[in-house]
Amino acid sequence: MQRIFYPQSIVVIGVSERPDNLARTIVRNLCHFGYKGELFAVGRREGNVQGIPIATSLDEVPDGLDLAVILTPAATVPDLMEACGRKGIRRVVIESGGFSEFSQEGRRLEQRLVEIAHRWDVRFVGPNCISVVNLENGVCLPFGDMSAGNARLGPASVVSQSGGVSLTYVDRLCVAGVGVDKVVSIGNKTDLNENDYLEYLLQDPGTRIVCLYLESIGDGRRLMDLARSSRKPIIVHKVNRGEASHRVALSHTAALADDDQIVSAALRQVGIIRAEDFRESVAIAQGLTLPPVRGKRLVVISRSGGHAVIAADAAERYGFQLAQLPDEFTEHVRALFPADVIAVTNPIDLGVIFDFDMYAGIVEECLKMLSPDAVLLINTYTLAEAEGAHRLARRVEEIVRESGRPIAFCVYSQGNESQVVQQHTSLPVFAEIEDAIRGLAASRDWNLRQARLTETAGGTVHTSREEAQRVLTTSGVLTADQALALCEAYDIPVAPSEVANNPEEAVRAVDRLGYPVALKALATQLVHKTDMGGVTLGLMDAAAVKREATAMLARSASPARLLVQRMVSGGLEVILGGKRDRSFGPVVMFGLGGIYVEVFSDVAFRVAPLSRVDAEEMIEEVRGKRLLEGVRDKPPVDREALIKAVLSLSRMLVENPRITELDINPLLVLEHGAAAVDARAVVAPDTPASE
Amino acid sequence: MQRIFYPQSIVVIGVSERPDNLARTIVRNLCHFGYKGELFAVGRREGNVQGIPIATSLDEVPDGLDLAVILTPAATVPDLMEACGRKGIRRVVIESGGFSEFSQEGRRLEQRLVEIAHRWDVRFVGPNCISVVNLENGVCLPFGDMSAGNARLGPASVVSQSGGVSLTYVDRLCVAGVGVDKVVSIGNKTDLNENDYLEYLLQDPGTRIVCLYLESIGDGRRLMDLARSSRKPIIVHKVNRGEASHRVALSHTAALADDDQIVSAALRQVGIIRAEDFRESVAIAQGLTLPPVRGKRLVVISRSGGHAVIAADAAERYGFQLAQLPDEFTEHVRALFPADVIAVTNPIDLGVIFDFDMYAGIVEECLKMLSPDAVLLINTYTLAEAEGAHRLARRVEEIVRESGRPIAFCVYSQGNESQVVQQHTSLPVFAEIEDAIRGLAASRDWNLRQARLTETAGGTVHTSREEAQRVLTTSGVLTADQALALCEAYDIPVAPSEVANNPEEAVRAVDRLGYPVALKALATQLVHKTDMGGVTLGLMDAAAVKREATAMLARSASPARLLVQRMVSGGLEVILGGKRDRSFGPVVMFGLGGIYVEVFSDVAFRVAPLSRVDAEEMIEEVRGKRLLEGVRDKPPVDREALIKAVLSLSRMLVENPRITELDINPLLVLEHGAAAVDARAVVAPDTPASE
Repeated sequence: MQRIFYPQSIVVIGVSERPDNLARTIVRNLCHFGYKGELFAVGRREGNVQGIPIATSLDEVPDGLDLAVILTPAATVPDLMEACGRKGIRRVVIESGGFSEFSQEGRRLEQRLVEIAHRWDVRFVGPNCISVVNLENGVCLPFGDMSAGNARLGPASVVSQSGGVSLTYVDRLCVAGVGVDKVVSIGNKTDLNENDYLEYLLQDPGTRIVCLYLESIGDGRRLMDLARSSRKPIIVHKVNRGEASHRVALSHTAALADDDQIVSAALRQVGIIRAEDFRESVAIAQGLTLPPVRGKRLVVISRSGGHAVIAADAAERYGFQLAQLPDEFTEHVRALFPADVIAVTNPIDLGVIFDFDMYAGIVEECLKMLSPDAVLLINTYTLAEAEGAHRLARRVEEIVRESGRPIAFCVYSQGNESQVVQQHTSLPVFAEIEDAIRGLAASRDWNLRQARLTETAGGTVHTSREEAQRVLTTSGVLTADQALALCEAYDIPVAPSEVANNPEEAVRAVDRLGYPVALKALATQLVHKTDMGGVTLGLMDAAAVKREATAMLARSASPARLLVQRMVSGGLEVILGGKRDRSFGPVVMFGLGGIYVEVFSDVAFRVAPLSRVDAEEMIEEVRGKRLLEGVRDKPPVDREALIKAVLSLSRMLVENPRITELDINPLLVLEHGAAAVDARAVVAPDTPASE
Repeated sequence: MQRIFYPQSIVVIGVSERPDNLARTIVRNLCHFGYKGELFAVGRREGNVQGIPIATSLDEVPDGLDLAVILTPAATVPDLMEACGRKGIRRVVIESGGFSEFSQEGRRLEQRLVEIAHRWDVRFVGPNCISVVNLENGVCLPFGDMSAGNARLGPASVVSQSGGVSLTYVDRLCVAGVGVDKVVSIGNKTDLNENDYLEYLLQDPGTRIVCLYLESIGDGRRLMDLARSSRKPIIVHKVNRGEASHRVALSHTAALADDDQIVSAALRQVGIIRAEDFRESVAIAQGLTLPPVRGKRLVVISRSGGHAVIAADAAERYGFQLAQLPDEFTEHVRALFPADVIAVTNPIDLGVIFDFDMYAGIVEECLKMLSPDAVLLINTYTLAEAEGAHRLARRVEEIVRESGRPIAFCVYSQGNESQVVQQHTSLPVFAEIEDAIRGLAASRDWNLRQARLTETAGGTVHTSREEAQRVLTTSGVLTADQALALCEAYDIPVAPSEVANNPEEAVRAVDRLGYPVALKALATQLVHKTDMGGVTLGLMDAAAVKREATAMLARSASPARLLVQRMVSGGLEVILGGKRDRSFGPVVMFGLGGIYVEVFSDVAFRVAPLSRVDAEEMIEEVRGKRLLEGVRDKPPVDREALIKAVLSLSRMLVENPRITELDINPLLVLEHGAAAVDARAVVAPDTPASE
């Protein structure tokens, strides 16, 4: 990676003197951004760009250059890769498109690339990407002209699955006063993928914030592991959520759609901040460049009362508290400033004070006397007042630097003044109140999380459990008795039950189990047994058991068996489930059972293994959680037993990769303890490739 | 109103030559924006501003001027109002602050203002406002310098409860290519309020879209009536949602917080578009200035594949369909353009075509061959390509004009290029994909609503119902029997029941009603009867009834009575409710009963009277609506009976203004019919002021 971002020598392949030649723009960008290393150009015709001669063959450049950049028709790329290999070039950026994202033929070309690269031990970026940028040393490889933009060095690095989007991020982050350090457009991520870049950037000294734009997540578990180990905030702008967009991404970078709800849960689980759009990403990055927010006490200072009301609404939405100001502060401010015209409440409405220098004074008093966790200063002004406003911006920047406290500075003016004022300060200027509050909230949540980070359950434990192994000799859909046995093997309590092959066995089983009992037909294909008449509940005596068992066996396909189960009364029905996600591996689901899961989809996900905190948080996430506390005349249920069951399920999924789906539905959570009443599971025929 | 927005003569009061004088800025703004009427200035000292002499008394200006603008200390305003009255001035704009929003003394001053104005038949804007603007004739009265801004005439008019916010809207709407016609900052809305301005703007020829920024809604029903009668779209940016912001608004413009959920329901009910923030308001206004969107078939054309994926996600979120393109179109485009490098899917990814003129060609072919309901064109480019991009913007504007079809034009470039390109076209330029889709969706929803508008139930019907009147002789909290009688009087079916004063009467009642029955203690203070042991269910014989009735009466406070109710089996529990909202009057609530309403708050609101469509829509709005269709082994319930009950409740609330609260909980909706099982109502002691 170091050679990709810090090459001492670069050769650009595909250059010509023609004005519309794209590779030529790469050379121009390198010159414009002051790249100081050796630079070579290769093309089909001799010539000269930016004072650099165009060689007509790679043979003419020195051996062992650090980096080659290729922008030629797709069909020519494999041979060029071969040539790079021969010349001892070990890092290549392939900007050309026309590979797997475009056609079947392209897919074959891409496969050849991988083979050749592997043979020569070459690592490459792309293909089908816009490039790599490192503003520290002027490595600026996009084939679009970057010279007229406003790229400036800053703490954010960008990894983007779309070239166009990477350029939008560069522009937005720089306009917003954040600035960028490194950028990589990852294209089809054929060799190096988002996780490789992320891993590098997390240890890169120049990068303090990482922004990822992703249309698909390849190895979700590695992404999570990287995030867990990170002391730098990671912002993910993940798109391609639904079916409609799925098709597009296939034709764009051969992306595969993920289950969006799992993505959200997984990212949240490891503290990755998910942003919905460009604006939110940038606002979060702005917030994270300020000194850290470590609590929720916010003071809002606004020149316009209306903007103050908007800020109060936004503060409430994002969990900030606008504390009442103490009388001492009010008196002090009234003594220092003509405060009979300003309302010294929180928000502080600066009303008709027209002297911007006073605003800075009030901010300082506020920091000194109130020690808030953050300040939001909103300045609304016309262009006629711009000079004073720029002075205020510079002064606020000084206050932030001197005090080490976060002040979100938000400007409402005219035209592009919010961009102009940004040129007068290195403090990020927020263009909207909601952005400012979002940014502060991201900083608060990130810093509080860092402070209270508890260890997770750690890596995979490979205990093999005899009983589970016995059950797992079968594959396909397990019958309820098998699935419940699996639960029992992992200490998830199960309603007492036995299997009966005929009515007589059923009656004998009930003698051992006690009344009342339920009878359930054991058949893999009956998914919703209650819909099919395969369940009879509440049988109170031997005659009823015998009668119903006989009827049920007659209805079933032979060889028929019955599950005789002691009925458990009371409790709250919940559903526990597990599935194996393509990107994230084993995932645990929790929700309220029955109608709640079917009608409200009121469920929460976490990626296994879960820590105790994960289990507690996922229970808190469900809207109907109040039912656990007992509503009306119902007693509260045993939350501890539920947490234990969630953690056991997590362990079961981690230890048994062949379980691809599992539903415990319902698990009855009782006043004391819990009992799995029904379960189903799907088991893969072979152990899949180890994770 | 006409005299406020189209005055032939204006006097500005409070002017001086001092550079920091604010009233002076008003005179400057009028001159800058080319106001052609007569203009006078009054101040404490003689002088001259913008060539206009300052008179030291109102007596020195002619009688009967159209409009006075006052910006002097609050204490002086009542006398000035008196002077205006004497001089035959009938319209006044009071920009001064320091009234009810500031102090008790200010509240008294404001009251005096009202009295004086009433005596002289003066109507006034404010106080505590920034002003009135009419860009048609240069009436520009803000005390902030507007000359350096970019105000341009356009179809949107703004009514704002905050002066600062009104200026932000002027700037944003103009920067976004919409432009403004009239603006009024309504301040404390002491005399003229948001509805007065709205009524005027709805018939004002220059206004085609109205944007309202509100921190409180005074007369919600009038707002709804105005919106119902409107053929112009109305956008409402309503803030001050929660408690935290409530306090702020009190100190800002003496606003009162409304119940935010009711506000949302009421606005939606009459087709007012609610926006969450500045950006959404402006995006919606942009969408509404395009030719109307009349359906959901969208074609997205994008230069960057990543931006296309983002657009596909956003399109799905806002209910657009990205239809597959027919083969003829694909072939046609491939013949006309070098389409072997572009992916002719929807979104159309323009990939590596660098000739912007071709983009326009593809847009034209698309309109011609596909007739989509809307097109989204996303152009991403560097500043080096700005010239071609500006040419494209102008060409797209022509295509929109010639075809009369809506094309949302969205630009991602560098710096403030999205503002610069706006200066090359009168077509609105969207700064974000999400904004563009939001704008198109608003146009679609507005136009589809206009097309299918059904008549609502119309005005209040004052039928007095004997039974209802009898019940309503009491006030306070009604007992269940009284509340159920009220339901019955309005044809809401009620579970058969009788009142019993002793165990013997209870047994006799059951003989008439039939078994099983429930007994309920009748007491107003028992709100949750099940929590208090005041309900016994499922009694099957006379002995049980007698025993339980005796016990229940012994527990109750005397004089004790019981409701004996035939138990209704099956059905789905729902809750129907009503309350009287301060702004909107009678409001109807519907939700699933029991746990669903308590834990999930899964309810919908509508303002009464409801049309049938309102009732249907509110049932559709509830998340758990699937339960009405029957889940698992349950049959669907009688939706028609439910709709009838909702409409009956609506009528009851409208006809009986003394009912301030009513819950029918539960109403059992059965397979055929429905039955109210329990109800409570709160009745006000006197008939409140008529509505």
